[in-house]
Amino acid sequence: METANGKLGVLVVGLGAVTTTFMAGTLMYRKGLGLPGGSVTQMAKIRVGRGKDRKYLKVSEIVPLTDCKDIEFGSWDIFPMNAYESAMNAKVLLQKDIDPVRDELESIKPMKAAFDPEYVSRLAGQGGNIKDGDRAALVEQLREDIRKFKSEHGCDRVVVIWAASTEKFIDYNPAVHSKLEDFENAIKTNDKANIAPSMLYAYAALQEGAPFVMGAPNICVDIPAIWELADKKGLPIAGKDFKTGQTLMKTVLSPMLRTRCLGLSGWFSTNILGNRDGEVLDAPENFKTKEVSKLGVIDTILKKEDQPELYGDIFHKVRINYYPPRGDAKEGWDNLDIFGWMGQDYGMQIKVDFLCRDSILAAPIVLDLVLCSDLALRAGLKGTQRWMSFFLKSPMHDYTQGEEPIHDLFQQYTMFKNKIRELGGYEPDEELE
Amino acid sequence: METANGKLGVLVVGLGAVTTTFMAGTLMYRKGLGLPGGSVTQMAKIRVGRGKDRKYLKVSEIVPLTDCKDIEFGSWDIFPMNAYESAMNAKVLLQKDIDPVRDELESIKPMKAAFDPEYVSRLAGQGGNIKDGDRAALVEQLREDIRKFKSEHGCDRVVVIWAASTEKFIDYNPAVHSKLEDFENAIKTNDKANIAPSMLYAYAALQEGAPFVMGAPNICVDIPAIWELADKKGLPIAGKDFKTGQTLMKTVLSPMLRTRCLGLSGWFSTNILGNRDGEVLDAPENFKTKEVSKLGVIDTILKKEDQPELYGDIFHKVRINYYPPRGDAKEGWDNLDIFGWMGQDYGMQIKVDFLCRDSILAAPIVLDLVLCSDLALRAGLKGTQRWMSFFLKSPMHDYTQGEEPIHDLFQQYTMFKNKIRELGGYEPDEELE
Amino acid sequence: METANGKLGVLVVGLGAVTTTFMAGTLMYRKGLGLPGGSVTQMAKIRVGRGKDRKYLKVSEIVPLTDCKDIEFGSWDIFPMNAYESAMNAKVLLQKDIDPVRDELESIKPMKAAFDPEYVSRLAGQGGNIKDGDRAALVEQLREDIRKFKSEHGCDRVVVIWAASTEKFIDYNPAVHSKLEDFENAIKTNDKANIAPSMLYAYAALQEGAPFVMGAPNICVDIPAIWELADKKGLPIAGKDFKTGQTLMKTVLSPMLRTRCLGLSGWFSTNILGNRDGEVLDAPENFKTKEVSKLGVIDTILKKEDQPELYGDIFHKVRINYYPPRGDAKEGWDNLDIFGWMGQDYGMQIKVDFLCRDSILAAPIVLDLVLCSDLALRAGLKGTQRWMSFFLKSPMHDYTQGEEPIHDLFQQYTMFKNKIRELGGYEPDEELE
Amino acid sequence: METANGKLGVLVVGLGAVTTTFMAGTLMYRKGLGLPGGSVTQMAKIRVGRGKDRKYLKVSEIVPLTDCKDIEFGSWDIFPMNAYESAMNAKVLLQKDIDPVRDELESIKPMKAAFDPEYVSRLAGQGGNIKDGDRAALVEQLREDIRKFKSEHGCDRVVVIWAASTEKFIDYNPAVHSKLEDFENAIKTNDKANIAPSMLYAYAALQEGAPFVMGAPNICVDIPAIWELADKKGLPIAGKDFKTGQTLMKTVLSPMLRTRCLGLSGWFSTNILGNRDGEVLDAPENFKTKEVSKLGVIDTILKKEDQPELYGDIFHKVRINYYPPRGDAKEGWDNLDIFGWMGQDYGMQIKVDFLCRDSILAAPIVLDLVLCSDLALRAGLKGTQRWMSFFLKSPMHDYTQGEEPIHDLFQQYTMFKNKIRELGGYEPDEELE
Repeated sequence: METANGKLGVLVVGLGAVTTTFMAGTLMYRKGLGLPGGSVTQMAKIRVGRGKDRKYLKVSEIVPLTDCKDIEFGSWDIFPMNAYESAMNAKVLLQKDIDPVRDELESIKPMKAAFDPEYVSRLAGQGGNIKDGDRAALVEQLREDIRKFKSEHGCDRVVVIWAASTEKFIDYNPAVHSKLEDFENAIKTNDKANIAPSMLYAYAALQEGAPFVMGAPNICVDIPAIWELADKKGLPIAGKDFKTGQTLMKTVLSPMLRTRCLGLSGWFSTNILGNRDGEVLDAPENFKTKEVSKLGVIDTILKKEDQPELYGDIFHKVRINYYPPRGDAKEGWDNLDIFGWMGQDYGMQIKVDFLCRDSILAAPIVLDLVLCSDLALRAGLKGTQRWMSFFLKSPMHDYTQGEEPIHDLFQQYTMFKNKIRELGGYEPDEELE
Repeated sequence: METANGKLGVLVVGLGAVTTTFMAGTLMYRKGLGLPGGSVTQMAKIRVGRGKDRKYLKVSEIVPLTDCKDIEFGSWDIFPMNAYESAMNAKVLLQKDIDPVRDELESIKPMKAAFDPEYVSRLAGQGGNIKDGDRAALVEQLREDIRKFKSEHGCDRVVVIWAASTEKFIDYNPAVHSKLEDFENAIKTNDKANIAPSMLYAYAALQEGAPFVMGAPNICVDIPAIWELADKKGLPIAGKDFKTGQTLMKTVLSPMLRTRCLGLSGWFSTNILGNRDGEVLDAPENFKTKEVSKLGVIDTILKKEDQPELYGDIFHKVRINYYPPRGDAKEGWDNLDIFGWMGQDYGMQIKVDFLCRDSILAAPIVLDLVLCSDLALRAGLKGTQRWMSFFLKSPMHDYTQGEEPIHDLFQQYTMFKNKIRELGGYEPDEELE
Repeated sequence: METANGKLGVLVVGLGAVTTTFMAGTLMYRKGLGLPGGSVTQMAKIRVGRGKDRKYLKVSEIVPLTDCKDIEFGSWDIFPMNAYESAMNAKVLLQKDIDPVRDELESIKPMKAAFDPEYVSRLAGQGGNIKDGDRAALVEQLREDIRKFKSEHGCDRVVVIWAASTEKFIDYNPAVHSKLEDFENAIKTNDKANIAPSMLYAYAALQEGAPFVMGAPNICVDIPAIWELADKKGLPIAGKDFKTGQTLMKTVLSPMLRTRCLGLSGWFSTNILGNRDGEVLDAPENFKTKEVSKLGVIDTILKKEDQPELYGDIFHKVRINYYPPRGDAKEGWDNLDIFGWMGQDYGMQIKVDFLCRDSILAAPIVLDLVLCSDLALRAGLKGTQRWMSFFLKSPMHDYTQGEEPIHDLFQQYTMFKNKIRELGGYEPDEELE
Repeated sequence: METANGKLGVLVVGLGAVTTTFMAGTLMYRKGLGLPGGSVTQMAKIRVGRGKDRKYLKVSEIVPLTDCKDIEFGSWDIFPMNAYESAMNAKVLLQKDIDPVRDELESIKPMKAAFDPEYVSRLAGQGGNIKDGDRAALVEQLREDIRKFKSEHGCDRVVVIWAASTEKFIDYNPAVHSKLEDFENAIKTNDKANIAPSMLYAYAALQEGAPFVMGAPNICVDIPAIWELADKKGLPIAGKDFKTGQTLMKTVLSPMLRTRCLGLSGWFSTNILGNRDGEVLDAPENFKTKEVSKLGVIDTILKKEDQPELYGDIFHKVRINYYPPRGDAKEGWDNLDIFGWMGQDYGMQIKVDFLCRDSILAAPIVLDLVLCSDLALRAGLKGTQRWMSFFLKSPMHDYTQGEEPIHDLFQQYTMFKNKIRELGGYEPDEELE
């Protein structure tokens, strides 16, 4: 594998709470001023070898990971605020954790965004830092942005990651999204209904040789046309939807139930959050995109067909509520109705109240996905990177072939560790369960 | 391995809520009237084989498990009520789930218990169905009970399992508990301070060729003297403390934190329960036994020495409160203070409220431990059965050699599956993490 | 005041969970078999007199309340099940609390309902026990039902109370709802858009001399046209929406905040319930009716204009979610974001999880409203009975005159007690706060 | 009544989190920089007059309240840190809310404390800012402190308030605590077992003409000997135990249950907190003092004798747990088991999780109690001030005469308002319920 020489450009779509928390935190961390808690690439120790040869190594000791010090940050956003202003506005980090890297943050000024208010109605008319042009023109401008950033910052490699809004729900349309040729025609003909802005970023990134990661539930790179492009260009892609709070919990509690053969009759999940993400999701068409992403989680872990007596009739509901008083401090409340010995007449309840911080949980995932994508790039891995499912709420998989996603956090982690072991020349474990 | 021919006697120490729920439920189940939810031996499907040979089988399809229909139930208790009366008194199961097996339950009349009020002060003076004699005499009576039960019920094999009270805390005393010879001398000299009643049951069982399982946190079989006896007699033992509600959750959430590199600053657990278990634990000396069992869980999963920045300073507190209004419907409330990106200034909280049912969760564990112990017996496995850790809050391990317990539920499950695979002639997976 | 001689007919619109719980419970109670917990008319003791003359009396010792033994029950419903079948179907009460009054319940067979599927879309096509005819014809049939019930059951007086579904939201339309004449014309012209089925029951009841109570949030009797009719006929009316769980809590916690001068920045309320009420409210147009009823509660207790620094910017959101696994066992989860000393930078949170039972909380309110309405009838009180606000989520008041509702539970209780005192010949207290 | 001329000295025993939050907040507020949220004297509007004469006035518009600008702050503490250092150490207020009043806070240096480690074992050996001498000598030094403070700061009046630790539990001892003469003899004879340090402060304050308020649950001024002294000197006293979080909630939810005739079978309350208060209460002998204070609340609101079917068998348990990770951000978790219609078979649960801030809730109560005590002083009110019960967890009352405390928050508020009305020349309301 290529070693991680030179600089890595990290271009983030969206310069909001998550992105600035990721940037400020990474900048602080590389100055020795902040803990990269939650980042597996920076903190985890993975077992390699077996029996007597067994040892625990950090990821960077197993594979040639890019050092955080070699990252150059860039961004697009519809708001013209620089990263410092945006970090202050986001009210996630304390002044004391922003000030030491204020200069670096101020120098990160967002490029104009490729934006379509139809896709994010709640932000229509806001910001103004927006590109003109039809879909094809926007692609060209984005490609130019990437080339320019790369040369101006002297980057050897670039990764593009989406940390912007959830777009409105659009269906997978085989006539457009299935084949690269059709997809490219739709761009040329400015097919706004089928080509979401996020797809333009993904397409531009891949055309410029950059891996692309989708951090929202947008289908964007979760379509065969883009897989075809990634394959053709030999580039890795990953997605979708950062797995932060409630879904993280879900992919841990579900395996507990399955392992213990405890039945599930209902799972109700509700969220309150007051950041821009919450505002955007207040629109039903955008929430639907999120809902689809969040609802899939349980079914593949607690399989109806395998255990009909336990999982044959699960009522699963997910709600997200915009609630401004809380800002970025998202709260997820879950209720599970479970049963076991002697069945449903002896129901039990598990309630989980997760008082989390959206951006604090997402930031290390951004860092991990960026570094793993770059690692995959250098390792010559192309197409959907299933081993990164660990970080994602709705892991991409080849649904056209009936492939199933892996949601169980611990199986995902085994996949992740196995890939790191493999890339590091160690033997992976063979099975997941 | 020997196949499971003939009848299996299951002698349970304590005929209270857990035991009667186990018995009534098993009786209903074998009549086709009840779901054995929560029972891994009855419901789980385990992957055996790899790659193309991969298949999912029930435990009884992999190994020769005793059929529930071949179980004969017996018990000891200080209260003279039969299993039907005790089940009614426990108010766990509904009338409709007891009536169809009323006759069988009524026929289960508890033998007199070997009891010492010093060890369970809250029950002092109650019951009255109690044996007379010093420690040595009690052992003889218990052995006679087992022999008699075996012959009267025509059992080929017997397993003895403790589902009675938590005894008061006693320290591991090397002068008594380390060597079998010393231990036997202490019985002979009626050393009440070091020989708890539970030890008499364990000793009697092993002498009579029966595996013994400790379902409470009593140290009982968790001492080298008993290991020596088990080894000498070639018998399996297991313990200790059924892992039902709050600790089950703990051994699932801790791995989540570790896997995601999220830090933990504090974990507060409180319980309210109103059954006899709660009453007994209301005595500080008995609670201490439980506390020790419950407190150990986190440390071996979230290791201070491995991740000092994340787990270097965890404040862990566990409380149990006797609260009669709730009866057997135990409620566990947990609060976790966690942190990640940029450290403790950005703390988050996870709160779990588990409205469970003590006996409903424990009953299938009793069944599983009994059947697995019998399986181990026939397979010629002797000594502490670590692969049964999956069912236990405080899994036994050889602490005299500095061995560490495995608490992570998913690692425990892998151990369990591996042993089942191995006993079934399949290849186990090699590593746990 | 007239004493309560003879029989009181209680005609309930809707024979579902609430109604059958009310009926079965009242029947059990009058047989000495059940506790009328939650019923103020049956259990409360009210202080009358002052200083040395102070004493505490039950309501029936102060005023001539109808005895529960003198009640005759009747009902309308779209489902043809009798009250016994419906009670069994509702799964609220245990068999043991239904069987002793099975005969009485079986004899309560629902009359055909005046139903319009446009108003309750989720129940469209169900039931079938439905009257034919236009609005005017339905009124005539309902009046005939009342007269017939009265004569067949030998009732001296009748009260009609709505315990059926929440209808879809309709706006107060001054052209129809303001004057009785216009209202009656709309019935004649079969104006389905403005005349909800519930209005037909109210109109029929009042025309037949029966007080009417609205237990759902339907505007029904909360319009000047009906006030005019009630006035003309000299009859009491009351409404709307039984105050059971979450709103009850809200009208208690809000006064706490106000009394202590604690500020409120947000209040999020969510519900999960799985009974027919939940199913009906799953339709957005029906939920809107409920939402309007539930949202009004806080504003009149925590007044923006009185304490702008504390209550100037409250974000209040209410959600109801249909969740079948829970049946009638509704769960309400509330989160309050509050602040005090030194303002919003020192925010605090109160979370309330109310595991209630919808019908168990509503049934005594039905009984109280029925008995109080009958009392009001005999006392010659006419029009909206504000003193019954205590039982109602959205108490009726003359909004055309800018009158404000009283939501504070304790002020409502003082109003209630004062009216009882007054009717009993005692001096009421003068002020509410 | 005397108007509030000149300066008011406020001497607070204990210069910890509560006191510095009170001082810093009051200093900020009087500079126009902070909201006195939670302070009834500063923010509430009280109705005076009736009918047409009805109007809503602030407390200071009704009675001549001392202006916060006229307060001079002083303190005693065993730690020598000044109020600025202590406020920083307490980590309650943000830097931005301390800095503008840093100079004033720095000038508040604690006088040496009258301390006995026997009474607060967890603080034994800490601090060092401690007076020498026997009980009698300590009294003299405290009196001298008060006189000196008064003259140095030019105060017209002084109020002494205890905001220090909960002392170990001591029983009311009639031989010492009943008569002033006996009490004074016990001081002279240095009777450490019966004379707690807090009593020395109370005695010294009253001897110097200063009202005394007990903010912890110490019995201190809740004994007839001190009542005799207060009476003799014509001074007001108040206590005990600031009503902040969990108990506040309890005195609001209990009235809700009673008003609605809902039964209560159990109430479990647990707390986690990590400040010095939590540390002190970790000692069982100190917790007992607190427990007694917290347990009394329910019984006088939900009276067994009045409603035996509803309140005849309440199981009430209160736990406090020292939990350092949370600091001053106390969390109180309550579970109520309630019932209503058809009794206990249909139990329901209310769970309240109160994420509060101990000092933020206590600070405004300190301000209110100080200003009300000074008002009482000028109004010539002497002895126990029951109208201040509103602020107190365990309101003082004449238990020697069988008098009962008032715990219902809304009744307490009526008492408070009535006294303010009375002192302002308005007619009070006559009855409380």
